[in-house]
Amino acid sequence: MSQDKAREFELLFYPRSIAVVGASRTRLNFGTLLIQSLLSAGFSGPVYAVNPGASHIAGAPAYPSLAAIPGPVDYVVTVVPARQVLDLLDDCAARGVKVVQMFTAGYRETGQAQAAARERELVAKARRSGLRIIGPNCIGVYNPRHRMPYPPMSSVGLAGDVAFVSQSGGHASRVAHDGILRGLGFSKVISFGNGSDLDSPDYLEYFAADPETRIVGAYLEGVRDGRQLLRAAREASSVKPLILWKGGRTQAGAETAASHTGSLVSSDVIWNAAARQTGAVRVYSVEEMVDTLLAFQCLWPFRGRRVAVISGLVDGGGGDSVAAGDGLASVGLEVSPFSRSTADMMREVLAPAGTISRNPMDVGSAGTEGHTLEQLAELAAADPAMELVLIQLHMDQLLGFLSTGRVAEIAEFFIRLRQQYHKPVAVVSFPGAREKERLEFDKRLVSASIPTFPSLDRAARALANLNLCPPL
Amino acid sequence: MSQDKAREFELLFYPRSIAVVGASRTRLNFGTLLIQSLLSAGFSGPVYAVNPGASHIAGAPAYPSLAAIPGPVDYVVTVVPARQVLDLLDDCAARGVKVVQMFTAGYRETGQAQAAARERELVAKARRSGLRIIGPNCIGVYNPRHRMPYPPMSSVGLAGDVAFVSQSGGHASRVAHDGILRGLGFSKVISFGNGSDLDSPDYLEYFAADPETRIVGAYLEGVRDGRQLLRAAREASSVKPLILWKGGRTQAGAETAASHTGSLVSSDVIWNAAARQTGAVRVYSVEEMVDTLLAFQCLWPFRGRRVAVISGLVDGGGGDSVAAGDGLASVGLEVSPFSRSTADMMREVLAPAGTISRNPMDVGSAGTEGHTLEQLAELAAADPAMELVLIQLHMDQLLGFLSTGRVAEIAEFFIRLRQQYHKPVAVVSFPGAREKERLEFDKRLVSASIPTFPSLDRAARALANLNLCPPL
Repeated sequence: MSQDKAREFELLFYPRSIAVVGASRTRLNFGTLLIQSLLSAGFSGPVYAVNPGASHIAGAPAYPSLAAIPGPVDYVVTVVPARQVLDLLDDCAARGVKVVQMFTAGYRETGQAQAAARERELVAKARRSGLRIIGPNCIGVYNPRHRMPYPPMSSVGLAGDVAFVSQSGGHASRVAHDGILRGLGFSKVISFGNGSDLDSPDYLEYFAADPETRIVGAYLEGVRDGRQLLRAAREASSVKPLILWKGGRTQAGAETAASHTGSLVSSDVIWNAAARQTGAVRVYSVEEMVDTLLAFQCLWPFRGRRVAVISGLVDGGGGDSVAAGDGLASVGLEVSPFSRSTADMMREVLAPAGTISRNPMDVGSAGTEGHTLEQLAELAAADPAMELVLIQLHMDQLLGFLSTGRVAEIAEFFIRLRQQYHKPVAVVSFPGAREKERLEFDKRLVSASIPTFPSLDRAARALANLNLCPPL
Repeated sequence: MSQDKAREFELLFYPRSIAVVGASRTRLNFGTLLIQSLLSAGFSGPVYAVNPGASHIAGAPAYPSLAAIPGPVDYVVTVVPARQVLDLLDDCAARGVKVVQMFTAGYRETGQAQAAARERELVAKARRSGLRIIGPNCIGVYNPRHRMPYPPMSSVGLAGDVAFVSQSGGHASRVAHDGILRGLGFSKVISFGNGSDLDSPDYLEYFAADPETRIVGAYLEGVRDGRQLLRAAREASSVKPLILWKGGRTQAGAETAASHTGSLVSSDVIWNAAARQTGAVRVYSVEEMVDTLLAFQCLWPFRGRRVAVISGLVDGGGGDSVAAGDGLASVGLEVSPFSRSTADMMREVLAPAGTISRNPMDVGSAGTEGHTLEQLAELAAADPAMELVLIQLHMDQLLGFLSTGRVAEIAEFFIRLRQQYHKPVAVVSFPGAREKERLEFDKRLVSASIPTFPSLDRAARALANLNLCPPL
């Protein structure tokens, strides 16, 4: 990527000041919410509102025009009707603004020829004026390091090295939101809507080069220039894992996508071929995107298929074991027997307990006694035939049999296990009635690079996806 | 079903008194937990412990032997080692016990010839003594009407008309537990483990005849007599919807099932054929079982494919709409345009808003104004081209834009909508940070026969499953 382009993107993700044009004094619109969010999340630079009828909006000083703002303005957010935007771009150019993020919609996505013409005019004017446009029809940037949240978030999550680029603002916001709750650390998230100036190939090119980004997720609906996207995707996925969700893969979805971001949706066959060519990992829902990003954040560059499964930590886990055998096998992972020496040692730990020396291991009530659970799990992790340890647990059940102190001790043990045996550990943590305790437990594990998933099927899919990324 | 058999099952699900043999005074074993659960859930009859070393266990009076218990005993639970069970059966017979539920394991499932022989002996003795056995290797009965919970539950959930029969105690307990949290009302749940006396065909026959049961779910791993099971499944599914999950459908799963309940697992091809022949609806995980039972509880005998989707209730839902188009189409549901007159009326409600008169409908910020959301949803529900209304919502987002009072009002509106248009309504209620509010909202809807699901894919699958049940 050229140095010029890198500088442009620097201001896009790290603006020194932001002005919101069209925040309402009386209604809770996107602009008002954005100002609230920026201020409560502690954005470091000045935040201004542009509104002729107010002195302050949501805590930010308001000015009648961009020209009236006293300091420099890097980044403008438009929440005004489309018909006002062209004049606004003149004001932006005059004021030395570099980036315009347009929440404003009403362009190509309406399907009207006049609106599409207006979008072309918009881009032409931006190019003439040296402005870059994010959008239109988008919610722009989430950058935890720069304390830029998505409204109505009142704070940012952990900073990390996962980037997500999305044609949909809703999906960008949900991947950010759900990701934060699950322990994903983002470098940046960008929603770019119609992508009429900067488009998916630009963002992919940037994230491929961005030193803050190690893993890239993308939600795309369509693209103006397929060849350019293919090249950008190939380049990105040759240096970093690229997780790709394509919206509009069915007729019904494609028709909706056309009215959503004005995308000409190409056929799913082409996208499948493109994914294969580029080495991108394809996913099919918000849930699978978040699960897969989490698996990559915690485990990549691990690749492997031979899974040791530990179920029924304190109570019969026979059904869970069968489900794990089925679920893992059906996505191409392997649940093969422990090595003979491992099985022998397991039998020594516990006298004849048929299901304990098998893979999946069903610990059962033995797990309530002393440190039997730890002994068995260590034997499983140490088995050279196993590449990954997957533990299934029910927080409701653990807390039914064990003290909270013992449950916390088990989390720390899993973390030591991962470190000691240099072998990936993943956890299925089934939801139930003790969600507060479960989410805390999960967060502790994820912070130590143990991904957690709410169902076996979701875990299996995300872990299998690790193998779809070619070694880089 | 014969009157004799019906009477046998009456005592199995409605015992007048229960004795637990092998509850521990010092350890929290299954027996101790069961006594705690029965007492705290308010089981109406006497609960006794049999233990030679205690006068009370977990609040129940303890006796040195069954013979020493003062009153009649209908139902005995064994938590003793397998070698003690044969003698215990003599005591049971002498005491007039009718049903023995064996938590005790260590039989066929161990893979040892001696243990399999012990199981045959057990059944022979039970038959000679006029006893019926649930198990061995199982957790038995959950019956909310009779206040029989699964340990460690301290209460029972709502009573209803969904039965679940399971070869796995873990899955029985989880379907009960998750089902209760989701608003499922059970008639009875039974875990029967090895099923060495009463087996899956017996339970299916009973639930087919049971007047308290309208919908039957089953988790099976294998069966001694395939022809008998096929007949029972065919009979059950000719009178009630039968939702069937078969564990051990892959090689890895099947090997695990053999050591779990000693099941000879037949090939998946045979089960697929059987499901087709019998009209059973096949599902593939605990999550899909609970989702599908909930869809049937709320909506059956509805069948239909044409779905009106409402997304983005207060904020852009374009991405959700595309995902709904893709997700519903990929399971064979249809998201086709609204009738022309409906679309015209929608456009009247709101001036040119491209995405609002389309299906999926993306309400967006219009939903924060007055009762626009209600007006649009009513038009969608009234459209004769639509058979089902599916609403997607994010509680975190709703509460970001609307007051809690308004959110409660929206729940009541959905309920009126369902009643007024005699058309099924279902809701995707995405998890987030406001889980308490979300689960309350969901419970209110489910109580009015509006099923809720935590993801679009899970909703799509469960709603599509309604169509796999033949009309009865």
